Amino acid sequence: MKIAVLGTGMVGVTIASKLIELGHEVKLGSRSATNEKAEAWMGKNGRNASQGTFADAAKFGEVVFNCTKGVACLEVLKLAGAENLKGKILIDVSNPLDDSKGMPPSLAVSNTDSLGEQIQRAFPDVKVVKTLNTMWCGIMVNPRMLPETTNVYLSGNDADAKATVKGILKSFGWQEEEMLDLGDITTARGSESVLPIWLRVWMATGNGAFNFKIVAAQQ
Amino acid sequence: MKIAVLGTGMVGVTIASKLIELGHEVKLGSRSATNEKAEAWMGKNGRNASQGTFADAAKFGEVVFNCTKGVACLEVLKLAGAENLKGKILIDVSNPLDDSKGMPPSLAVSNTDSLGEQIQRAFPDVKVVKTLNTMWCGIMVNPRMLPETTNVYLSGNDADAKATVKGILKSFGWQEEEMLDLGDITTARGSESVLPIWLRVWMATGNGAFNFKIVAAQQ
Repeated sequence: MKIAVLGTGMVGVTIASKLIELGHEVKLGSRSATNEKAEAWMGKNGRNASQGTFADAAKFGEVVFNCTKGVACLEVLKLAGAENLKGKILIDVSNPLDDSKGMPPSLAVSNTDSLGEQIQRAFPDVKVVKTLNTMWCGIMVNPRMLPETTNVYLSGNDADAKATVKGILKSFGWQEEEMLDLGDITTARGSESVLPIWLRVWMATGNGAFNFKIVAAQQ
Repeated sequence: MKIAVLGTGMVGVTIASKLIELGHEVKLGSRSATNEKAEAWMGKNGRNASQGTFADAAKFGEVVFNCTKGVACLEVLKLAGAENLKGKILIDVSNPLDDSKGMPPSLAVSNTDSLGEQIQRAFPDVKVVKTLNTMWCGIMVNPRMLPETTNVYLSGNDADAKATVKGILKSFGWQEEEMLDLGDITTARGSESVLPIWLRVWMATGNGAFNFKIVAAQQ
């Protein structure tokens, strides 16, 4: 599949590399047509790896990963262009982290709204699926590095889009029983609210390579 | 030990009953000296079970559980009386759930502040320890009903108070490795932020008898 990954940070590069490994053609998008980090990534990932502007990438991808910083997302997606994203699945991995007030960061939007919803409202013709945003990127693309099953959430308004995204998650190593569809895009308020506890568990334990598992009593 | 439980809802009664079972003397506090729910609870729990106003209970308890509704907490604790709570450990199990805008509830305070901090600021002479607020009350007092270990968080400014609370949690069945001290009371922003995801997992699965487990990679 032709996949766009917006964002050349650690999350974008990690996901883009995994997609290449799985045989996809991947265009890494950034603010400029040539980007140093994208260049380095291409050097390691062969002929299926390319780069371009956010608009180039959005045009290229049949599916688009949003791995840009939460507070910049809406601006980046405008640069990507509503016409280039129209009708496509946007897999939103971002979190609205605001580190302007020190560490740990707070959330720029939360509780009665979410970044996932803001994106869906700003781009009504895009099928936004929020997922993978509740963990470190190493686990996103390699959940089997953990000694037990854990959970990954999906939020979105389009059932077919969520089914497609589940297929991609499966190819990353996620098992069917680990994937929990929370419902429509408003449920992103739930998954984005994981960040405040994630950050504090990380600070208390010193280990960011963890994920949460839902352990339920037998009914 | 003499323990006060403020609040006669499901959480208060569940914790109060467990404390009686463990041999403590427990006074259940409410707005009035005689309360129907407290009466029913006393009927089932023998001579160590008593009731009273919030102030009666706060005066009685060496340790005080706050199991009142989050949005009413500060008012209830004023009724309990700063002089009655002075120097004592207040185990804050509450969450600032606001259901005035429909279901699922949002949080009345979140992100850059927390109810735990609000209580600590309003009652500087009380040792507030936030804990147990991230799960259904059945699991709070019986964590072994789950098929695996899970996690319970502690937030508070006083190390000795947290050690005492850990002892109480241990008597409820929590194992040492399940208890995670997140740090000072500002980390209650983390545990209170579990509610938005807890509610959505509950709505998606239909089962509230679950808890989250931190699964970490070997370092």
